[in-house]
Amino acid sequence: MREAYQSDLRHIVDDLLDMAELVETALGDATTALLEGDLALAERVITADPHLDSRQVELDAKAVELLARQSPVATDLRLLVAALRMSSSLERMGDLSAHIALIARRAHPDTAVPEQHREQIRRMSELGLASLKGASQVIAERDLALAAQVEKDDDELDHLMLEISRQISAAEEGSYTAGQVIDLTLLIRFYERIGDHAVSLVRRVGFLVTGDSIDTLAEGVDVPEF
Amino acid sequence: MREAYQSDLRHIVDDLLDMAELVETALGDATTALLEGDLALAERVITADPHLDSRQVELDAKAVELLARQSPVATDLRLLVAALRMSSSLERMGDLSAHIALIARRAHPDTAVPEQHREQIRRMSELGLASLKGASQVIAERDLALAAQVEKDDDELDHLMLEISRQISAAEEGSYTAGQVIDLTLLIRFYERIGDHAVSLVRRVGFLVTGDSIDTLAEGVDVPEF
Repeated sequence: MREAYQSDLRHIVDDLLDMAELVETALGDATTALLEGDLALAERVITADPHLDSRQVELDAKAVELLARQSPVATDLRLLVAALRMSSSLERMGDLSAHIALIARRAHPDTAVPEQHREQIRRMSELGLASLKGASQVIAERDLALAAQVEKDDDELDHLMLEISRQISAAEEGSYTAGQVIDLTLLIRFYERIGDHAVSLVRRVGFLVTGDSIDTLAEGVDVPEF
Repeated sequence: MREAYQSDLRHIVDDLLDMAELVETALGDATTALLEGDLALAERVITADPHLDSRQVELDAKAVELLARQSPVATDLRLLVAALRMSSSLERMGDLSAHIALIARRAHPDTAVPEQHREQIRRMSELGLASLKGASQVIAERDLALAAQVEKDDDELDHLMLEISRQISAAEEGSYTAGQVIDLTLLIRFYERIGDHAVSLVRRVGFLVTGDSIDTLAEGVDVPEF
């Protein structure tokens, strides 16, 4: 009985890692669709998103069921509460990836990313993927040594968002159409939010490992000067 | 003992309603600051946001403590799990209000909202406030009759976001500076996200009242065609 319970708890963690893998695929594919103008790939990301939503629903139901059946305390309780929060973050990261794919689809056959920003957007996607992989490792191994890198990736995402935004604002009139500015503004915000959620994931693991109060876990204002 | 527990559960609901009131103030003030160019008011919204974050941390700690101490099942368990989710949504709505205030502050002494969009932004704020008040009533009274109006308000918010976005894209070249397009794109997205969170709040109450599965609670892709 006790053994089954421990196995249930491990399954919750495995489910979180599965969700993270689905988000990785979605984010990577969305960026490829965006930069290569691959309409079929964009469609695939968009139609795959409900699957991630279902995974969250299943995970949450399992967690609530364990809370009801086992009345966990201490670390196990914290794990289940953290899992509920983490599944929300992962589901939201999936949404943001689908949003990127939606912009790719709308822009097709043009690309939403002007030539001079391709490299920056490619880097933002790379950072989003790295922060997500880092967060998965932190979840899998409960090793907070990797957390600092996720925070650094997020800082670079913030920086790139600001940089692109300033370049657009400072450009000569007529350098961008209004539609391009709208798309770029949304895109850089979506990538930046993915970094925020990765940070939120590793902070929740921090809460699990250290048992600290969750004082540092409120998101705060995430874009102080955008 | 049992009575103290019931009173603790009621306090959790009261705390959610208090948070909702703080968000209402933040959102109303942020919009006034934005449309009237009131710098002091913008500052007030920005500096008040950490207070809302602390309220979330306190509420979550209380909920986790009750989960540990009382091992609730059935409705009480669902209430506590829902409260953890709802406090996240409210905290995020506070962030979004602070983001609006940050844009007002950055634009000062100019206004981020061109004359031709003032009325639409005023309406988006009104809808955001209405959906938040509606959600509070649903939380307080567990009366789902009001939920439909919150969904309707959210639909109108989506519609206004699309309308403004299309007007900007379709305008003659030079009608907006790139900076104006960036600010407007972010502003309409922030208001629209507030509506999404209000819907998420009432759906969580729905889950409490009906005891339905949480199938309908994943957010999905919230801006299908933005």
